[in-house]
Amino acid sequence: MKELREAILTKGVVLSDGVLKVDAFLNHQIDPILVSLIGKEFANRFKNDRITKVLTIESSGIAPALATALELNTQLVFARKKKSLTLSSNLLTASVHSFTKNESNEITVSKDFVKEGDNILIIDDFLANGEAALGLASLVEQANASIAGIGIVIEKSFQPGRKKLEAAGYRVESLARLSSLENKTVHFL
Amino acid sequence: MKELREAILTKGVVLSDGVLKVDAFLNHQIDPILVSLIGKEFANRFKNDRITKVLTIESSGIAPALATALELNTQLVFARKKKSLTLSSNLLTASVHSFTKNESNEITVSKDFVKEGDNILIIDDFLANGEAALGLASLVEQANASIAGIGIVIEKSFQPGRKKLEAAGYRVESLARLSSLENKTVHFL
Repeated sequence: MKELREAILTKGVVLSDGVLKVDAFLNHQIDPILVSLIGKEFANRFKNDRITKVLTIESSGIAPALATALELNTQLVFARKKKSLTLSSNLLTASVHSFTKNESNEITVSKDFVKEGDNILIIDDFLANGEAALGLASLVEQANASIAGIGIVIEKSFQPGRKKLEAAGYRVESLARLSSLENKTVHFL
Repeated sequence: MKELREAILTKGVVLSDGVLKVDAFLNHQIDPILVSLIGKEFANRFKNDRITKVLTIESSGIAPALATALELNTQLVFARKKKSLTLSSNLLTASVHSFTKNESNEITVSKDFVKEGDNILIIDDFLANGEAALGLASLVEQANASIAGIGIVIEKSFQPGRKKLEAAGYRVESLARLSSLENKTVHFL
């Protein structure tokens, strides 16, 4: 996606070989016009998949997922991150390990909003090790709903996330794929 | 705002005299069409105020703030909640007390994105005691930026938030104002 690649090149900051900071347009400050285009692009890629609901995780997934849900004319649900597991019979939960922070978090979603019969599009801002996406997929599978695919704004293709998601049988659509961040430079696949 | 009042009446759940659950359309599942209308309404109320940026706080503020920023053709910034203060010279921080959870959190925003000369519209999903809005306002004032006003989706008018914000000199625009949640019933002002 051209506009996204341009934003990454002009406003992204490579902090290390593994870390691209996109605080200027996606993760802290958000460019609503770019996010709308991202939503249109995801919607276009899944337009024939009869999506019933878009699922993401707070906080950075919410903006692109909202733009996508608006285009697909579906509801959006965002999973919550919790440090400690809230005991509730009405929640689906999964554990997500963050390699960056070296900690695991529970993520939760209400059984009221992800249900058998749903065909879910999962959206997230980054794909690195795939842990967040696999956690979201687990929530959907616990609900006996189906997963149409996983839409990623920025994929770090030099990390194992895509391979893990594809091995688990999921379709992955990424709008920008980074082959390397070495030498403080963004290289697209 | 008629569509919002209807959503509150048909999909909101009064949990107690003080708590309205809007997980079905605003806080966990999000109705993108309703959120777009919310954005248009905020934009209309502040259309003559030369807003340069919309500021909110993760997570539930992001969707209505994004819709507003899209209409106003400005960038959106969301403040982050942190349990522990990250030491960084580039962050503005404020402390926000939650009466519900009886704990205080630091909220932070990068100095790169809220600056002197900005005219900021603050957006949040709920106004109760006003602590979150006052924290966001503090971030703006620390940056020597100005505050055009505070847009609230649902105001609990029986709690002191509006009074505190108005006493501090801020314009408050709320799209739904609740006078009471007694007897498990929503009463609008």
